[in-house]
Amino acid sequence: MRLATIRVDGETRCVRVDDDAAVETGHADVGELLRDPTWRADAARADGPRHDVDHLDYATLVTHPEKVICVGLNYLDHIAETGRTPPEYPTLFPKYARSLTGAYDDIPMPHDDESTDVDWEAELGIVIGRSVRRARGDDAAAAIAGWTVVNDISIRDFQYHTTQFMPGKAWEGSTPVGPHLVVADPGDATAEFPIECIVDDQVMQSSNTKELCFGPVALIEYISTFITLVPGDLIVTGTPSGVGHARDPKVFIRRGQTVVTRIEGVGECRNRCV
Amino acid sequence: MRLATIRVDGETRCVRVDDDAAVETGHADVGELLRDPTWRADAARADGPRHDVDHLDYATLVTHPEKVICVGLNYLDHIAETGRTPPEYPTLFPKYARSLTGAYDDIPMPHDDESTDVDWEAELGIVIGRSVRRARGDDAAAAIAGWTVVNDISIRDFQYHTTQFMPGKAWEGSTPVGPHLVVADPGDATAEFPIECIVDDQVMQSSNTKELCFGPVALIEYISTFITLVPGDLIVTGTPSGVGHARDPKVFIRRGQTVVTRIEGVGECRNRCV
Repeated sequence: MRLATIRVDGETRCVRVDDDAAVETGHADVGELLRDPTWRADAARADGPRHDVDHLDYATLVTHPEKVICVGLNYLDHIAETGRTPPEYPTLFPKYARSLTGAYDDIPMPHDDESTDVDWEAELGIVIGRSVRRARGDDAAAAIAGWTVVNDISIRDFQYHTTQFMPGKAWEGSTPVGPHLVVADPGDATAEFPIECIVDDQVMQSSNTKELCFGPVALIEYISTFITLVPGDLIVTGTPSGVGHARDPKVFIRRGQTVVTRIEGVGECRNRCV
Repeated sequence: MRLATIRVDGETRCVRVDDDAAVETGHADVGELLRDPTWRADAARADGPRHDVDHLDYATLVTHPEKVICVGLNYLDHIAETGRTPPEYPTLFPKYARSLTGAYDDIPMPHDDESTDVDWEAELGIVIGRSVRRARGDDAAAAIAGWTVVNDISIRDFQYHTTQFMPGKAWEGSTPVGPHLVVADPGDATAEFPIECIVDDQVMQSSNTKELCFGPVALIEYISTFITLVPGDLIVTGTPSGVGHARDPKVFIRRGQTVVTRIEGVGECRNRCV
């Protein structure tokens, strides 16, 4: 089952995206749906107004997640190629709801006098479907609603102004999320998807989410140790090698370029940087 | 004028705290009040149900701030004593709404097998009263609703698990905020208050917020460059010297101890760690 949040008449609506139509569930967005403990059954039997699947205006998947928690340094192939050893704990930093945008929306670049160091990071997003604190093993897996596509667009100079990444990660409207929540089977935390990032037809990143150092269960276990994860929370799991600022010479996104973020079996974001 | 969010009959209510009574404004919390552009006048003339000021049950000041942005390394006296030079940019990291608690609430400590490295950080909080993006100078000052007291309680081992501080800063229910929003005169960004932290009658920190390296206007200018600050957002401005993990030997908060966080002219939090 695929779910999405679409824009209709200046509002947002949660829909189940079938092959032939997008069917409204009666909720304002996927986040509101997920707060209902019976959301899987509710979404499966939803029979509201229908929309043409070829003409949907996708909003970001969860419009106001309580938390967006991103992970750095989380691909084993990337860690190996940099000669580092796998870390003991996940590196976590935030974005805010206001940092997110829709799967096909334009991304507003910083003004030229603010930054021109805009970089891509294709990432698998985990959407939380059940509240958990201090979850372990199966309880952590059961908190997963499903998967989505995220590009953790990063303003590198702001990211490295100090030791803390946040100013370069939380830029307003920078981060496409969607178009769909691909609902996982209850308790199934298996995430093995080919992932790639393409900038103006050039493949910049290509890996597989099975290379995650901290997988979905480990991330939920660690985060829920210190804070309750709630429905609609988004965990952004980190990016494989191939980002622009690690290239020699560095490569950054130029105004007018289009960034495609693709996870096979999950979906694709396509965003023009303006 | 002083404003607060109190708990009444299992709900929260925004009140103006006068000398003789706390008067309801008709909003669920200070955050909801601040979203009304005429909030200063509305709060001043509020005449709702009244409560005995000596028996108020304070909730955290803004129950669901969109953003809680904390600042590290921001006291000139502390920077000088560590032999560092003042930084070029503020060090920013997040807490979440769920990390906050009331001014007199008990603070739930981590389980002993999670962490015993619980530390204090007395800090001045800036509450935002007007939406601003790319604000400079007077526009930044005009975004300030006023001041409050915060203790940025820090779980030091989690803070230093990786380069990113968040896991040690966002612990659920760890961070008292309040009891009051002390409303600033419109456009007045002057923040010169004695600040101290006392643990079980021992003064651990004593400084003045005039020692801030990045003051309120500079912080709002920098943050609003990358994201819109909105009413109810909380900026936590950093702590002076005297924290426990910088002592030799290190000192941490033990279960049962009471932490008092006091800013003269703004207020006092008093929290037992349980």
